[in-house]
Amino acid sequence: MSEKEPSPREKIVAGAADMLGRRGLNATSIRETAKHAGAPLGSTYHYFPDGKAQLAAEAVRYAGGRVAAGLERALRQGPVAGLGAYLDLWRTIIVDGDYRVGCPVLAVAIEEPGSGERPAALDAAAEAFDTWQSLLAASLREHRTPPEQAAQLAALTVAAVEGAVAMCRAQRSTAALDAVDAQLHALLRTATGEGAAG
Amino acid sequence: MSEKEPSPREKIVAGAADMLGRRGLNATSIRETAKHAGAPLGSTYHYFPDGKAQLAAEAVRYAGGRVAAGLERALRQGPVAGLGAYLDLWRTIIVDGDYRVGCPVLAVAIEEPGSGERPAALDAAAEAFDTWQSLLAASLREHRTPPEQAAQLAALTVAAVEGAVAMCRAQRSTAALDAVDAQLHALLRTATGEGAAG
Repeated sequence: MSEKEPSPREKIVAGAADMLGRRGLNATSIRETAKHAGAPLGSTYHYFPDGKAQLAAEAVRYAGGRVAAGLERALRQGPVAGLGAYLDLWRTIIVDGDYRVGCPVLAVAIEEPGSGERPAALDAAAEAFDTWQSLLAASLREHRTPPEQAAQLAALTVAAVEGAVAMCRAQRSTAALDAVDAQLHALLRTATGEGAAG
Repeated sequence: MSEKEPSPREKIVAGAADMLGRRGLNATSIRETAKHAGAPLGSTYHYFPDGKAQLAAEAVRYAGGRVAAGLERALRQGPVAGLGAYLDLWRTIIVDGDYRVGCPVLAVAIEEPGSGERPAALDAAAEAFDTWQSLLAASLREHRTPPEQAAQLAALTVAAVEGAVAMCRAQRSTAALDAVDAQLHALLRTATGEGAAG
């Protein structure tokens, strides 16, 4: 990999994203995240003076951005190849993580905040979902798919993959993701006219 | 409704399912659940001597069973009508819950347990997903869909609806569920030969 060494701050954010994907929002504390990232607690509070809400929002933006970058790269070869890479990424995450790792973006979307105020992490989650959908929809439109169908297929793809990852964790099997993979591939091939061999 | 008045024990289980769907597993405590269900803490421990793990597993079985019963009823009119009822149920839950309520089965599937042992709630979640998929697949097979395609479409339906509910919460909009609705309806109509007017 040609990526440069992450800064201590980035390591904490990446660690928080990993913890969110494993344990969810409520079980992810500043203290545990610092420990998980091998960072001193003091420096963690230094980087994130607003505490957990700030760290969680940054972790969701980080995770959402990583997936978006991977998706954007993969979509350069068209929507069908992009879908394949997106699904392979998730399959690797759940299998390598022994069915204990999922999506940090989904995790913050399903836990109601304690207070009445809408947390920044939830806005970051909405933005991540929007971005993934937009990337997929744009690629589909560029490959002969009418706009409304492209938008619906993009939403279906993101929703089905997010749901399947959670099902795979409970079922300790990639069967749900494999089934979603087969159906989405067939749909995208038909929509883009890439044919069954896609 | 002709349903009989729930017992105090059932009220606690239903309250726990509601809390899991709102806040997730880690924020659902025995104490909060008792308060939420208006039950004395002592009687809650009396009904659930093994504590939170036992209550969470029963809440997931309760929620999974409720969805399965509704789905089974709706599928008597065929898979397309069944899909419509399933989606309407979820649309009502998220809109009536002001985008703060989701699926308790998904919630327990995405939070890694603290200890090494696999929690009973996770087994209950796997069983709920399996049951919903089986009901949909059986209905599709009974309506001219080949077995492999029926199984894949059932998995896609459950995964896409679960994912879309989470997206709707973050996006404070039913758009993702509406898109999934349109695409799944088209797919199921084609698979069963019910035609575009289905």
